[in-house]
Amino acid sequence: MGGDLGPHAVFSACEKALLDFPFLEISAFGTAQATECIPLSLQQHARFDWKQAHETFSAELKPTDILRHKQSSLWLAVEHLAMEKADACVSGGSTGALMVAGKRLLGMVPGIDRPAICQRWPTRKGQTHMLDLGANLDVNPALLLQFAQMGSVLSEVARPRVALLNIGTESNKGGSLLAQAAALIDQDEALLFAGFIEANHLLDGDVDIVVTDGFTGNVALKASEGAAVFLIEQLKAAFMGSWYGKLVGQLAKPVLLKWRTQFDPGRYNGASFLGLSKPLIKSHGSADAQAFYNAIGVAVAQTEHKLPALLAARFKASVE
Amino acid sequence: MGGDLGPHAVFSACEKALLDFPFLEISAFGTAQATECIPLSLQQHARFDWKQAHETFSAELKPTDILRHKQSSLWLAVEHLAMEKADACVSGGSTGALMVAGKRLLGMVPGIDRPAICQRWPTRKGQTHMLDLGANLDVNPALLLQFAQMGSVLSEVARPRVALLNIGTESNKGGSLLAQAAALIDQDEALLFAGFIEANHLLDGDVDIVVTDGFTGNVALKASEGAAVFLIEQLKAAFMGSWYGKLVGQLAKPVLLKWRTQFDPGRYNGASFLGLSKPLIKSHGSADAQAFYNAIGVAVAQTEHKLPALLAARFKASVE
Repeated sequence: MGGDLGPHAVFSACEKALLDFPFLEISAFGTAQATECIPLSLQQHARFDWKQAHETFSAELKPTDILRHKQSSLWLAVEHLAMEKADACVSGGSTGALMVAGKRLLGMVPGIDRPAICQRWPTRKGQTHMLDLGANLDVNPALLLQFAQMGSVLSEVARPRVALLNIGTESNKGGSLLAQAAALIDQDEALLFAGFIEANHLLDGDVDIVVTDGFTGNVALKASEGAAVFLIEQLKAAFMGSWYGKLVGQLAKPVLLKWRTQFDPGRYNGASFLGLSKPLIKSHGSADAQAFYNAIGVAVAQTEHKLPALLAARFKASVE
Repeated sequence: MGGDLGPHAVFSACEKALLDFPFLEISAFGTAQATECIPLSLQQHARFDWKQAHETFSAELKPTDILRHKQSSLWLAVEHLAMEKADACVSGGSTGALMVAGKRLLGMVPGIDRPAICQRWPTRKGQTHMLDLGANLDVNPALLLQFAQMGSVLSEVARPRVALLNIGTESNKGGSLLAQAAALIDQDEALLFAGFIEANHLLDGDVDIVVTDGFTGNVALKASEGAAVFLIEQLKAAFMGSWYGKLVGQLAKPVLLKWRTQFDPGRYNGASFLGLSKPLIKSHGSADAQAFYNAIGVAVAQTEHKLPALLAARFKASVE
């Protein structure tokens, strides 16, 4: 059913993804309303399968309400994944409902206690993975260590640099929970503990993984997003504010477009519920077709890299 | 002794402030090293008084170390304020040390439990005050209510719109602490509770005061700052990346400068340790002369508006 832009954007994303990934098969779930929007090219596509659902899960409902809406497209899609009819699932629906459905239907990788939402960030040098972005408001040091370990599997870096988000870099900053988590991460020889990182350095790219609790991570992500939108909007207003500005703005268009594309959040769309037994990808509510396509790309990559198996192998030791 | 740019920036700020505020008298504290930098215009100024200190308090020390450095310029300046030889104090020194010195030397306004760091934000419509930005990592609902009340006195808005920073706007988001704080703020008839606010809406300007714990506030502030710096840097690189871009960049310079000035964090420099018995203002470590001047402006404004008396009056009821 897509996010704010509705099923059209999702169908466009599917068309592009089926073209680009020759082995991809898509089963799409939506209501009768969405059925009417399916483009002809998809209706006739051999690798596209439409599954009509009775209802769509409203974002206004509480996450746990999903348990009483088992005919919704969201639930049915995750169930399809759980029944091994798919390798990964992508949705623009309610994050909380996806989390509840994922935990219930897919379960956790053995040895992992709770799923964490993880997303890539563009930085000055390559990309950084940050987690948790909203699944766990209350954490403990052992859980933060697990986040670091899960992030390290996802990042595919051999011995990734891991930093803990804090309000200062000195070792005495931020309270005992962070100090204990720092000690645990430091002790894990598969990780390279890079110390604490302040939120104004999240885009420096000096670390591969940034670990934090879900509340702080969510605030950091949204604050960055809000500042970026504000600056872009103000820049547009500055150019539109005068006759001269409008003229120069036209001339500067190629430069400005290149600039915007570089850190377009849509390029990094697709957050993972890391720790679930199968790849479940959340697409941003405001994602357009290109952004939703990128979220499908995340699902494809995690399937190709056998992420669940890698996670299971990494956490096997802690289970035995 | 100033922040990263040293005493020069502070002296330039003093020169400008003494010109603009005819009733302002400045006592400045610094080491012998700074004495050598005092410009002639200040040396001879009737309203400028130089106080040489034995040492400067290093930002690398722990905040509580300030108690063993009572001859430092930082301690002496706050002590000067405590001894009623000044109405307000501005410093670019260590936030933690200023907090410790402030609590010890100035004490709290009766009825206020803990100081909170509060700063103005530029928004799409006017300004928003946000607190706490780093003084209190552990909070409780009553403390968050106090932050809202302190912020309301500082904002000078009759019945300010107060929002709590959260990871969603639905009333069930964010855990019981925020739900309890929401109920307390909602019950205070002097405040207009505007519900929860997400970090990507901090710059909308729809509320007068945003209340949060010091950890989250610090992360939100720094994440926004980091994103802004990143975007500005990337825009510069986009213009410098080609011959055409360089040319257009020259033409666009007036527009780009106007844009940058609008949300220049230096314009909003000067954070308050709200709740202390006298105005103590923290200037950002990276503040230049203009930004430090703005922090002096905050001190002047709080003195003129008799902020400590207003705070005392607001919290008198809770003491009696």
